[in-house]
Amino acid sequence: MQEWTERILAGDARALARAATLVENRDPEGLALLRELFPRTGKAIISGITGAPGAGKSTLADQLAAAIRAEGATVAIIAVDPTSPFSGGAILGDRVRMQRHHADAGVFIRSMASRGRLGGVAPATTDLAMLLDAAGFDHVLIETVGVGQDEVEVARLADVTAVVLVPGMGDDVQALKAGILEIADLFVINKADRPGVDSLEREIEAMQALGGEANAVRPVVRTVASRGEGIAELLAVLRQCHRQRHSNRRKTDLWVHRLQEMLRERLLEHLPAEEIRQAAEEIADHRSDPYSTVETWLSRLTFAKQEN
Amino acid sequence: MQEWTERILAGDARALARAATLVENRDPEGLALLRELFPRTGKAIISGITGAPGAGKSTLADQLAAAIRAEGATVAIIAVDPTSPFSGGAILGDRVRMQRHHADAGVFIRSMASRGRLGGVAPATTDLAMLLDAAGFDHVLIETVGVGQDEVEVARLADVTAVVLVPGMGDDVQALKAGILEIADLFVINKADRPGVDSLEREIEAMQALGGEANAVRPVVRTVASRGEGIAELLAVLRQCHRQRHSNRRKTDLWVHRLQEMLRERLLEHLPAEEIRQAAEEIADHRSDPYSTVETWLSRLTFAKQEN
Repeated sequence: MQEWTERILAGDARALARAATLVENRDPEGLALLRELFPRTGKAIISGITGAPGAGKSTLADQLAAAIRAEGATVAIIAVDPTSPFSGGAILGDRVRMQRHHADAGVFIRSMASRGRLGGVAPATTDLAMLLDAAGFDHVLIETVGVGQDEVEVARLADVTAVVLVPGMGDDVQALKAGILEIADLFVINKADRPGVDSLEREIEAMQALGGEANAVRPVVRTVASRGEGIAELLAVLRQCHRQRHSNRRKTDLWVHRLQEMLRERLLEHLPAEEIRQAAEEIADHRSDPYSTVETWLSRLTFAKQEN
Repeated sequence: MQEWTERILAGDARALARAATLVENRDPEGLALLRELFPRTGKAIISGITGAPGAGKSTLADQLAAAIRAEGATVAIIAVDPTSPFSGGAILGDRVRMQRHHADAGVFIRSMASRGRLGGVAPATTDLAMLLDAAGFDHVLIETVGVGQDEVEVARLADVTAVVLVPGMGDDVQALKAGILEIADLFVINKADRPGVDSLEREIEAMQALGGEANAVRPVVRTVASRGEGIAELLAVLRQCHRQRHSNRRKTDLWVHRLQEMLRERLLEHLPAEEIRQAAEEIADHRSDPYSTVETWLSRLTFAKQEN
């Protein structure tokens, strides 16, 4: 184990890839590794990049990675994908990306299947980010497809979250924007060469204004990721937001969320599977009700006092 | 409480709306109500309708509701929305829908904010569906925007899940389709008057073929929801899937998932918030590591034996 940690800290790509797989699969050995590596974390800027399908998040992440590499810094990209149970792997786009950066040890790319994880994708994503932070990457970019609970959770666990919007999108975009306001530290208007940029920016401002004084106004950056436009500015704003938000209080809040998610993920292991199945049968037959069942279980659960 | 249950069972719309709010807000009184009403559940067909933004899920749900009403049966629609913390309410489209059906007691429509719920949106959605089932609605349609963990969870908790796709959509649709295959009981190709319908249907078939014999081939229904085309067929297929899938084993599996989600939602209440905050501070300062902290907590958790 110690040798393995040393290899990861020394930048051994194969050791890191193997560790990432263990972490993604929630293997106990992966957790043991994280425990050893934790003191080395806290240096990377962990950014979430989220938005609707088709907003160009992957292209943005790629361009950010190129800009970071041009400075000589290193970057890891975690792409959270809804993945087929049939293919069981990363989607094609990411395989292509991985090939492009294959020879560059300063770039690490990993697709994380969100599958039907009962514990949600957030704890595994956070742990992978911790691993990459410990391994010495200066930036960790977490890309999430779609909008929903995943995004909220991943955003809560990232240091900074950028929400990507595109001008002139349809009806449901209204809903996307609304849901996503609470997790945005900054907004990116990508494909900013399309019509409707100004009105989208006004909409974002109007929505923020509704939030009142309590909500800081978030920066809005315009990009055309496919041509690399606005990327340098975006990187600068990400770093600025990170500096501003990375107070001790914010870090503690982050860890409160992360600990809750870690606990929620692991708690089910400690519940009696056989008893749950038996109760489910009774409920399916309407011989008992689920609400009383859960109450009874909760009353049987005790959390021993801390030993000093 | 008993009077309230009676009013709900008698079809009192105001009593139902109030109960739905309590259930959505996870109020203990709402849970008490559900406990009383549970014996009356099990008659409704609870269907999930999911797909990417812009796929026309709301229009489909509306048309299904109209077809169900035309038969004289009743229907409830639950729209799971990512909602702004600023507006705190349903999105505009649903308000418009609600007004249209306002005078019809045979239609119930409710938007469920997914917000940043720590327990996820699934338990509240399931409970709301249970309430509407008990209240006597023949159909409960659950609409989810976006694709991710939410959809997987909601789909696991519905009796039947329809995945809505649209021909000729972009790049990320490949990802959406992949992620969503595992939750689909049937596919709807909406906007089927657009080019690319045949090739989309072939793609769906090809993907299913990859799954091998273990995976039953799911029906594919073509609709043009905006013109009401294919709606009668869709309704028939939903009912057929429900009959086929509603075995005792499937019902038990459903309740295993539901119980796990209910437990996961409630477990955090039983953890010491103050201690979590204190641990988070230590971790933020790198004075301890989160992995050992969580292990220690889990070792302190005990689940008392069942009393007979």
